[in-house]
Amino acid sequence: MHHWKEECAVFGAFNDPEAARMTYLGLYALQHRGQESTGIVANNEGQHLAHKGLGLVGDVYTEEDLLRLKGNMALGHVRYSTTGQNLLENAQPLTAVLSSGPLALAHNGNIVNSSQLRQQMIHQGAIFQGSNDTEILLHMIARMPQQDMIQALKSSLVQMQGAYSMALMTQDRLIAIRDPLGFRPLVIGHRPIEGGGHSVVVASETCAFDLIGAKYIREVEPGEIFWVDKDGEHSERFSSKGHTKNCIFEHVYFARPDSLVFGKNVYETRKQLGRVLAQEFPVEDADIVVPVPDSGVPAAIGYSQESGVPFELGIIRNHYVGRTFIQPSQSIRSFGVKIKLNPQREVLEGKKVVVIDDSLVRGTTSQKIISLLRQAGAKEIHFRVASPPTRGPCFYGVDTPKKDQLIASQKSLDETREFIHADTLGYLSVEGMFNAVGGQPQSNCAACFDLNYPTELFGQTL
Amino acid sequence: MHHWKEECAVFGAFNDPEAARMTYLGLYALQHRGQESTGIVANNEGQHLAHKGLGLVGDVYTEEDLLRLKGNMALGHVRYSTTGQNLLENAQPLTAVLSSGPLALAHNGNIVNSSQLRQQMIHQGAIFQGSNDTEILLHMIARMPQQDMIQALKSSLVQMQGAYSMALMTQDRLIAIRDPLGFRPLVIGHRPIEGGGHSVVVASETCAFDLIGAKYIREVEPGEIFWVDKDGEHSERFSSKGHTKNCIFEHVYFARPDSLVFGKNVYETRKQLGRVLAQEFPVEDADIVVPVPDSGVPAAIGYSQESGVPFELGIIRNHYVGRTFIQPSQSIRSFGVKIKLNPQREVLEGKKVVVIDDSLVRGTTSQKIISLLRQAGAKEIHFRVASPPTRGPCFYGVDTPKKDQLIASQKSLDETREFIHADTLGYLSVEGMFNAVGGQPQSNCAACFDLNYPTELFGQTL
Amino acid sequence: MHHWKEECAVFGAFNDPEAARMTYLGLYALQHRGQESTGIVANNEGQHLAHKGLGLVGDVYTEEDLLRLKGNMALGHVRYSTTGQNLLENAQPLTAVLSSGPLALAHNGNIVNSSQLRQQMIHQGAIFQGSNDTEILLHMIARMPQQDMIQALKSSLVQMQGAYSMALMTQDRLIAIRDPLGFRPLVIGHRPIEGGGHSVVVASETCAFDLIGAKYIREVEPGEIFWVDKDGEHSERFSSKGHTKNCIFEHVYFARPDSLVFGKNVYETRKQLGRVLAQEFPVEDADIVVPVPDSGVPAAIGYSQESGVPFELGIIRNHYVGRTFIQPSQSIRSFGVKIKLNPQREVLEGKKVVVIDDSLVRGTTSQKIISLLRQAGAKEIHFRVASPPTRGPCFYGVDTPKKDQLIASQKSLDETREFIHADTLGYLSVEGMFNAVGGQPQSNCAACFDLNYPTELFGQTL
Amino acid sequence: MHHWKEECAVFGAFNDPEAARMTYLGLYALQHRGQESTGIVANNEGQHLAHKGLGLVGDVYTEEDLLRLKGNMALGHVRYSTTGQNLLENAQPLTAVLSSGPLALAHNGNIVNSSQLRQQMIHQGAIFQGSNDTEILLHMIARMPQQDMIQALKSSLVQMQGAYSMALMTQDRLIAIRDPLGFRPLVIGHRPIEGGGHSVVVASETCAFDLIGAKYIREVEPGEIFWVDKDGEHSERFSSKGHTKNCIFEHVYFARPDSLVFGKNVYETRKQLGRVLAQEFPVEDADIVVPVPDSGVPAAIGYSQESGVPFELGIIRNHYVGRTFIQPSQSIRSFGVKIKLNPQREVLEGKKVVVIDDSLVRGTTSQKIISLLRQAGAKEIHFRVASPPTRGPCFYGVDTPKKDQLIASQKSLDETREFIHADTLGYLSVEGMFNAVGGQPQSNCAACFDLNYPTELFGQTL
Repeated sequence: MHHWKEECAVFGAFNDPEAARMTYLGLYALQHRGQESTGIVANNEGQHLAHKGLGLVGDVYTEEDLLRLKGNMALGHVRYSTTGQNLLENAQPLTAVLSSGPLALAHNGNIVNSSQLRQQMIHQGAIFQGSNDTEILLHMIARMPQQDMIQALKSSLVQMQGAYSMALMTQDRLIAIRDPLGFRPLVIGHRPIEGGGHSVVVASETCAFDLIGAKYIREVEPGEIFWVDKDGEHSERFSSKGHTKNCIFEHVYFARPDSLVFGKNVYETRKQLGRVLAQEFPVEDADIVVPVPDSGVPAAIGYSQESGVPFELGIIRNHYVGRTFIQPSQSIRSFGVKIKLNPQREVLEGKKVVVIDDSLVRGTTSQKIISLLRQAGAKEIHFRVASPPTRGPCFYGVDTPKKDQLIASQKSLDETREFIHADTLGYLSVEGMFNAVGGQPQSNCAACFDLNYPTELFGQTL
Repeated sequence: MHHWKEECAVFGAFNDPEAARMTYLGLYALQHRGQESTGIVANNEGQHLAHKGLGLVGDVYTEEDLLRLKGNMALGHVRYSTTGQNLLENAQPLTAVLSSGPLALAHNGNIVNSSQLRQQMIHQGAIFQGSNDTEILLHMIARMPQQDMIQALKSSLVQMQGAYSMALMTQDRLIAIRDPLGFRPLVIGHRPIEGGGHSVVVASETCAFDLIGAKYIREVEPGEIFWVDKDGEHSERFSSKGHTKNCIFEHVYFARPDSLVFGKNVYETRKQLGRVLAQEFPVEDADIVVPVPDSGVPAAIGYSQESGVPFELGIIRNHYVGRTFIQPSQSIRSFGVKIKLNPQREVLEGKKVVVIDDSLVRGTTSQKIISLLRQAGAKEIHFRVASPPTRGPCFYGVDTPKKDQLIASQKSLDETREFIHADTLGYLSVEGMFNAVGGQPQSNCAACFDLNYPTELFGQTL
Repeated sequence: MHHWKEECAVFGAFNDPEAARMTYLGLYALQHRGQESTGIVANNEGQHLAHKGLGLVGDVYTEEDLLRLKGNMALGHVRYSTTGQNLLENAQPLTAVLSSGPLALAHNGNIVNSSQLRQQMIHQGAIFQGSNDTEILLHMIARMPQQDMIQALKSSLVQMQGAYSMALMTQDRLIAIRDPLGFRPLVIGHRPIEGGGHSVVVASETCAFDLIGAKYIREVEPGEIFWVDKDGEHSERFSSKGHTKNCIFEHVYFARPDSLVFGKNVYETRKQLGRVLAQEFPVEDADIVVPVPDSGVPAAIGYSQESGVPFELGIIRNHYVGRTFIQPSQSIRSFGVKIKLNPQREVLEGKKVVVIDDSLVRGTTSQKIISLLRQAGAKEIHFRVASPPTRGPCFYGVDTPKKDQLIASQKSLDETREFIHADTLGYLSVEGMFNAVGGQPQSNCAACFDLNYPTELFGQTL
Repeated sequence: MHHWKEECAVFGAFNDPEAARMTYLGLYALQHRGQESTGIVANNEGQHLAHKGLGLVGDVYTEEDLLRLKGNMALGHVRYSTTGQNLLENAQPLTAVLSSGPLALAHNGNIVNSSQLRQQMIHQGAIFQGSNDTEILLHMIARMPQQDMIQALKSSLVQMQGAYSMALMTQDRLIAIRDPLGFRPLVIGHRPIEGGGHSVVVASETCAFDLIGAKYIREVEPGEIFWVDKDGEHSERFSSKGHTKNCIFEHVYFARPDSLVFGKNVYETRKQLGRVLAQEFPVEDADIVVPVPDSGVPAAIGYSQESGVPFELGIIRNHYVGRTFIQPSQSIRSFGVKIKLNPQREVLEGKKVVVIDDSLVRGTTSQKIISLLRQAGAKEIHFRVASPPTRGPCFYGVDTPKKDQLIASQKSLDETREFIHADTLGYLSVEGMFNAVGGQPQSNCAACFDLNYPTELFGQTL
């Protein structure tokens, strides 16, 4: 069940005869990372042309818009606003005309010290267009007019703390950057061009490459500035190599299951989370394993395969539900959940049910789902969560609530179980999660689960 | 994979303090049966108020629209147009003012002799508003001004051949009718009202009842006129009881998996289709069973359970794909399928794969899917179809192509296998399908599979 | 000042290579007769294609719409709704498919016995699409399937009482009809076609001909059915010749000043109304003559020319005022008038002013205008109305209020003068009006001024 | 006839309980100065809320928008874009958050050295939001964070050359500024508030005050910074007093006839232009004086009064013509003029006609008008222009073409007369224009007529 909201995705294409159109398709594939606004900037012989709008990729662009976005380089963005203000002026890519020419910037992440940097820039006379924290970087670069762009970036990036996977476009370069800890994903690909050769593409997730037939080459490395220009691909580091801090929640929930994220297939990782969960919290004599669709499905398949308990679609999701619907005047019990999820009596009645969800944040949705399952005749509900208890907010680009709204910070395990009215409740352990994901535990950021924040927080509260 | 398009769904509410709002929600749950236009007519103390629009239920109605649709009786409709013309004047419910007062009509099905009846009415001076075949019934009733509505209906319905599940609303009655063969579903429910009592609701599928907390009572019987007025519920027959001809394709593809259709849970029936398919066409040493999402999922679960071959989401569906998207200029291989479906290399590579789809019509989509699966590394593709070969068009409300476009009418089984480039191909047998669905075989209409059309065709070509 | 609202205008073109486009332009020129909805139906080789919308001609049609409206015959309409319901289903031209083929109908006027005829048709089983009274004629014709269209029209029209200037389009004919008394205008023209020959056009006013370069030929005569088909122009009468009853209010207010109406130039007639008014109600030692713009301008020019008192634009009209504007929360005195009309202190201060308006209905607007003029420093206000006191409603297509809202029916001349706070008040006499208009007095309908209604009223109240 | 386009109008309100609503109404009255975009910024207890849109004031704002624009200070703008790009990001008022708080700026005019200043700012690292030249001033002020706003303005304004009438809003001040030469108008008024006291309003023209019932107090003086805050009204100069250079074209064409501009009523000035024109270029035995509506009407009244030749509306203007209309495919002669202007045969036929227009720029429109008048039967056409020949472009905020498109720069008087096909042609002399306007000739800028540009042109070409 959808609890959390990712902030953004970026996509860029260089030397592509259909640059804007490939960007459009890339954003289409990345829509799950942001549904509030979108923009594409195309580079037509050094001139930047932009189209932005509020809403979904499929609604914002028309054929005419794409025809207008001429040129063989383009940069795009989809955005979910965490500030509550979904204004067109905050839609990315941000654009500016600097003394060196036009610049466009698309960003995924969150700068932890943005408020400090912003105040500092305003005191130096900078005028900000919107409330995007990345606008800071534009101003930093603008204030080094004599420097080469890559040098200006290196000088600027070291002042920025937090998570940032960014793509920039100048008159003649497409640039991709990941913060030194590599919180958010960012990948490089090659798209074969009819007639020979290939374009260079960058994207937040590999699913964007699959749609346009591009080949995944590698990740942008944490602390790397990667760019491509008429002389080919280049790379410099603005920070020495060290431990990464890949966001583990990309595996747990955010990324599309068919993406490679941090080098791993998300669907397989989620199944593995379910398998480990089955080892840690088996349910004896269970009749069926039922996912909370869609996000709980892969873990439920893993749980079923590990435990041998049959996997069943005991809850059907209505995919026609849009972003809004009109409420009934009188109360219908659990209506907000029911509009999307419908439990099936024929599957559930009299059964001992293992229910699998990807995570458990506030507990209110789980409570409603369990109530619906019981109304549909389930005899026992054993709730299993394919991630550990959520204990703290995220400062790196995820819209996780503060502690006072997190049930795991407010209630004991048993109180939580009672609150959601489950017969038993089991969360995956932090170690189990690291095991399922694989690699070195310390190369992940799991701060929302273990409160080990890998950066200074600059006065922000948990 | 979505091949076919259902024409419509209806919903009605009587004696409900939130009649229009419940109708809105009922249509929301029935959206899968028609996405082109929708309408609601409310009865406010004998006066009919209407709101119609092109598009999805979630987009057509605003809070203000529902507030305007006052009254405790309402009738609604969602429509898929099979004529190629999605015009607002064809949106249902149809409305008319007769000498007996206002009348609204919502219809699901197809009248086989509509062309003959329409010409006849025009020659008698009738003026038709649109191209809906049900408008015929309005004119028939209008021409019997001296008769009671139920009598007029009985006289009229006997002239209409084909499939019709309809709901009508007069000043003081909500009426539900099913054709004598009962091609399309239509169900009756009761919604408990705060403060006591219940409203009476009718709907095309039970999933509409689940959302609003209504209790399923029974189906409207084939050949029955059911109505409810201030004196309660009433029933008359306009045709003697006989064999039903329930559309088997409702089980195979149309209905929502969480609905009861013709008294059976659709998800369970689809799993059973998969189970029988596994018995009829097993695959030795298969590694995984992969559904074509979403419609192939339940049958794949059944196939997996029966065969013991693990169920895997080897193809991921992008649910953000809207009704339209802009094409790339240059060709991207299998683009039209790829925008919705993305096969996963990590799941498929080197595997012997059983692929399950609900049906196989033209073969072109299956061909593209198999091509994508092979590109993603699948070693062998064993294509299994959870219904028999589609051999003829439907004249009872489904948008099935004519024979010249049906691959099973044009090619042998082996030619078809070659065309879609599968290693093996297996269709569920007609008998297997009847077995899986249960009940008496002859109570189903499977004309699209076995060419046994249960009515005269009035000159229409296969 | 705009008080009253005309109901409609019609335009048709036959044998014109740009039929829809000429209709669009003709409606553009006739926009003053109806601003609520508009429609064009084109005849493309016997098939009727329609486009309708709510709003102004300039907003409803796009280039694409006009390109779609193929064919060399077209029919158009602009509408002002008098019923309070501006619904798209009431937009004209009305269309129907009869046994003889498609029919489109556009109407200007009002059928006095429409309610009686409508009830009669409903009792015979007719289903009405909207609340347009002309839909009756469609049903009458539809019920004579065996008859030729012209014969069917002749049989039908004799049953209709009231005002109707109509144009109809069948598969192969453009037909124009005026009621026997000729209340509303309707004219015939020829448009020269590049390469030779001419198309035949019909319109409510000649200003539509001027825009498209068509030549005015003649009026459709009262009681005439005029039609044009591949064999040329034809004419038959459905009623014997008699006195006409041309609506005198077309001269006074409705028609565009640059039109010929009933054979007379409207601007010249209005100037003449002003001249006669100056003879009947001179003002001694007046300083200036000031029109209430725009409708009072021609009469004020005439008054000025006759009296020798200088004509001055003492009130400036803001032409950017659209159909709606947002009110201030607190009251601004006479705001509703001020948003459109601004008196000029520099012109008015200390002056003895003759103010000319075209008519005086409720008195409230005149009261506000005079109040503004006094605030702007006018010393004396001598209000002169270029038509007689309005004493009764119109039943022939004009939205005049009932008697209880007409100040001349409720107050004496002197009470009216006091109410509007003028120093003196003079209305043109009925005889003066007839003199100014010219021709025989009895050939005009001036029922709103003299209560001589030329038809039975079928129970409608004054 | 509308030839030229003014760039903008501004409106501001301080200490007004309905600040945003009064600004809306003020902009409504100023719509003639800019129809492409509009914006209002309201100050709600120190916070700035904005609403901007493309189009007319009546279309851009809804009741909800105005309710949201809370606070008792507001600033508004209407804009005509001279750059060809009508983008929302160029819509004014411009807004910025400076270290001293929010700032909004609305501007009418043109900065002659904007290109130089802009490049200089970009080289200093400024990032510009749009292509408005006034954004320069925002950056200048932003770069003096330590200074008081008024001091910062004084330091900044001395660097700006050209025409600027501006209004600014900070957290607590409404500021109005006019450039030292006072090219464009800007006026101060007081609006009485219910319950006592008054708000302070500023506007481009006094017609905005008339609508809201505000009293005209005085002009903002050239070189003055006027502001109002909680301590009352204040004034400082940033330039010593000298000759003004009031744009004479405001009198000739731009301003609404009911406005006071530079202290004079525009309608009366235009009549006087017509009177002097009649003295300079009388026409013997003329039958009628006909204005090109609407802009030629006041001068034609003056010409008629001076010459004794009767004033007649020989050309009728269609006020329903919107900003766009669809062209016919085949050519209709003079169509572009005809859609707005229709000459009347009944008025013109056989007459010796004096035609009055406000100005003559390219000659193409006049040519078409004369052609239409001749088609309508005029015997002789004596074209009289109520301003001198237009000889050069404007660099101070008017969209006048360059010399190569000005007929008076390309052809002699007689060639021009021939080109437009008039029998005689007379332009008002420069001296006659100055006489009609009154005051000192040198206090006007008439550069478009006499090429005496009052500022350096910074490399711009004539």
